[in-house]
Amino acid sequence: MTITSSAGVFLAPKSVAVVGATPDKGKLASVILESMKNSAFGGNDHEQVMNDHEQVINVYAVNPKYKTIDNAPCYSSISDIGEDIDVAIFAVPAAITPGLLRDCANRIKGAVIIGGGFGEAGAAGLALEQEIKEIVRRTGVRVIGPNCMGIYDTISKLDTFFIPPERIKRPFAGGLSIISQSGSFAVTAMDELSADGIGVARVISYGNKADVNESDCLDMLCDDTHTHAVALYIESVDDGRRFVESARRCALKKPVMAVKVGKTEVSATAARSHTGAIAGRYEFYRAAFKKAGVIELNGYEDFMAACKVYGAKLPVVNGKRVMIITDGGGIGVALADECAAQGLSMPLPGAELEKPLGKIFPPYVAVSNPVDLTGSVSDEMYADALETAMTGTAYDMAIVAVLWGPPGLTDKLPAMLAQKAVVFKKPVIICSPGGQYTRERVRLFENCGLPVFPAPVGAVRAAALLAKGARQRQ
Amino acid sequence: MTITSSAGVFLAPKSVAVVGATPDKGKLASVILESMKNSAFGGNDHEQVMNDHEQVINVYAVNPKYKTIDNAPCYSSISDIGEDIDVAIFAVPAAITPGLLRDCANRIKGAVIIGGGFGEAGAAGLALEQEIKEIVRRTGVRVIGPNCMGIYDTISKLDTFFIPPERIKRPFAGGLSIISQSGSFAVTAMDELSADGIGVARVISYGNKADVNESDCLDMLCDDTHTHAVALYIESVDDGRRFVESARRCALKKPVMAVKVGKTEVSATAARSHTGAIAGRYEFYRAAFKKAGVIELNGYEDFMAACKVYGAKLPVVNGKRVMIITDGGGIGVALADECAAQGLSMPLPGAELEKPLGKIFPPYVAVSNPVDLTGSVSDEMYADALETAMTGTAYDMAIVAVLWGPPGLTDKLPAMLAQKAVVFKKPVIICSPGGQYTRERVRLFENCGLPVFPAPVGAVRAAALLAKGARQRQ
Repeated sequence: MTITSSAGVFLAPKSVAVVGATPDKGKLASVILESMKNSAFGGNDHEQVMNDHEQVINVYAVNPKYKTIDNAPCYSSISDIGEDIDVAIFAVPAAITPGLLRDCANRIKGAVIIGGGFGEAGAAGLALEQEIKEIVRRTGVRVIGPNCMGIYDTISKLDTFFIPPERIKRPFAGGLSIISQSGSFAVTAMDELSADGIGVARVISYGNKADVNESDCLDMLCDDTHTHAVALYIESVDDGRRFVESARRCALKKPVMAVKVGKTEVSATAARSHTGAIAGRYEFYRAAFKKAGVIELNGYEDFMAACKVYGAKLPVVNGKRVMIITDGGGIGVALADECAAQGLSMPLPGAELEKPLGKIFPPYVAVSNPVDLTGSVSDEMYADALETAMTGTAYDMAIVAVLWGPPGLTDKLPAMLAQKAVVFKKPVIICSPGGQYTRERVRLFENCGLPVFPAPVGAVRAAALLAKGARQRQ
Repeated sequence: MTITSSAGVFLAPKSVAVVGATPDKGKLASVILESMKNSAFGGNDHEQVMNDHEQVINVYAVNPKYKTIDNAPCYSSISDIGEDIDVAIFAVPAAITPGLLRDCANRIKGAVIIGGGFGEAGAAGLALEQEIKEIVRRTGVRVIGPNCMGIYDTISKLDTFFIPPERIKRPFAGGLSIISQSGSFAVTAMDELSADGIGVARVISYGNKADVNESDCLDMLCDDTHTHAVALYIESVDDGRRFVESARRCALKKPVMAVKVGKTEVSATAARSHTGAIAGRYEFYRAAFKKAGVIELNGYEDFMAACKVYGAKLPVVNGKRVMIITDGGGIGVALADECAAQGLSMPLPGAELEKPLGKIFPPYVAVSNPVDLTGSVSDEMYADALETAMTGTAYDMAIVAVLWGPPGLTDKLPAMLAQKAVVFKKPVIICSPGGQYTRERVRLFENCGLPVFPAPVGAVRAAALLAKGARQRQ
């Protein structure tokens, strides 16, 4: 068979083998085999999964200890399968991984090595990782990992994330792709996105990057039509020049956002013991992001805010002029403070808006920015205020801060706001702080595709990230 | 009767009248009367409420239009009641408020004027507010408001917050008191605290402050033994010198924290149309907070983080040395970044800790800070790591970042951590980001008195606020 050097095989494998497959339900390999089989239909001698291109994926179990697993055949080695394999998933102890990889390297295109105990775990582990690098160099096989979660892909249906579905939910299909050096970070983000109703295309956790690194992942996603935006979690970049090139190429086609953790000496030490990464000075990363047109994210919240707004398929933003509409004066002022702090502008309604806005409000509502509709608000007042303010060219986006206390507000409000947003084609971000009743209403906004943030900082940060995206495109 | 000039009557009224009482269930006065009667027991000619001192509060309805409301008598005026009233709550139109207040000023000690349409609403409203100020000056009656929510008090049982309980929950009794110029801000904070399991002592929303202002409120709460910590929301302070004096006096006895909103020109304009406040330059406020020993809060999230940690009755902190224990390497690094950004220190475990820590972990756990227990974590490993690290003098507090994915973690974990915290008497703050399963487990931590923040920024901010409190006390 021809081995191509492209890592692209990881995004569209037609055959997958789980090396280390086991009937023991507690083990990682078992979770992976289960995940792969969850959307499977029976084949003759193996499981088959249909991907989104309606292609069949063949799924093979490999372990010399078993003849069958759950009544499906189990192969003693990849060579025994009788078909070349696109992606082999290695869920075996670190010590035997290099040997097994070497034995099958000419029959597979790509390997995902999920186990730990390599470069992050001292001298012996480092030697094993060196062996893997040597196999890659010699054979051209591509490797993701070791010490990673691998790939969760809603398009190809590849799913090597060894997380039981009871505790961690996987997001549905969407346009956002995530590249993460940390597996736990990727898993937590996925779980949170799933709870917040945001879908993903591909999630790649690349761990110690014995071969495939952040730049390879960016190259893969650059031409991927399923990926509309990319969010990166980075602890370290080895080849800065290549990273800037890959990131810039990708950022020309779609928004690329990145968080770099391990900013200080102490936290960089933590990163080193986590994935063995040498973190480097943060200033270099900041400069690289800027050069590449990558939106810089600051920590976990920022990463999640970026995923929420860029995963929500909001209309494209052309500037940073924000209109705030609220029924709570105090929250309005807090949002205005935050907008100023984050570099967004909040122009007052001009002469052309004063009259139409004034006409739809009772006299106690000040025609201003924020517009404070007060506790006498109704669904219609919110919808009318939003439509009137956002039609025309005065504002680039709206933050609607909803306090659910006023009795004039009903569960119809989210859909009414979303309908208006479809017409004027500008992003609407919801800020809605509060307790139980309020939290139960978050889903109503999410179901209409409106991103919701409980408190002002998050909502304004989301707006600022959209504005940054607008600047990067110019 | 003797009218004292003290505003303290608002914290322990023995008789309350609702002026503008009505059987119309939609009206504000009706909501207030209902709230007051919710914990009432029947009197002869009026409702009676028992406060926490087991004193009876008499509750009277006043409105010349009705003889009875819900089968209880309604008085045509306060003079008709035949008893002097401690606190009269005015829920009548702005235009008739000054006249009614004037008529009864010598029979009441305090008035809460909840209605709007005063100084925040143009020249006519300003004139009405001037009239109220004149009555205060002439008679010595004390006034909270107008344009406010008034008081929600879990000790005295006074509750003038006109919010229907279906949408906005009131927190249970606790040691935190809140002083807020904005009513909606106070309501939203209360609702959120109630959902997060944090109790309050008194919440005072003082609005336009025709009389009682932030300094009066601080004076009231300074000597209040039920109040263990005070959180302020300020749009403006009129008399800076007095504010610093009152705040300093209070801060010597208990932690006082403040957020000042309307920091910039645009947001200050918003504040002006909200409560008629002239906001002033933020630098002055920051200097005043520092001089008074007040912990400066930055926006809504910060305010809520402060309420959560100072409302949770955590042990007193003596410094800023944080130990981070987690099962997610990436989150650990993110927390370490945040700690560095917020000025907390994260010393590595010294020689005296290395051995005992090393002994309780499997070899793949690095004895470091953060301690990363990895996906192989169990409840016991968390509890042992926490106990070992926090016993002794090496650390002042712990942030425990729990990712719930690993199968070794059970619902017993929160209580196990809380038990340890009781022994070593240092604050433990939980950081637990994730989706549905994780969010359902938040309550388990809250029930044990451990404050929970979904993401790193909030958890570290809470730790930094505790450390600030430690500095202020020195």
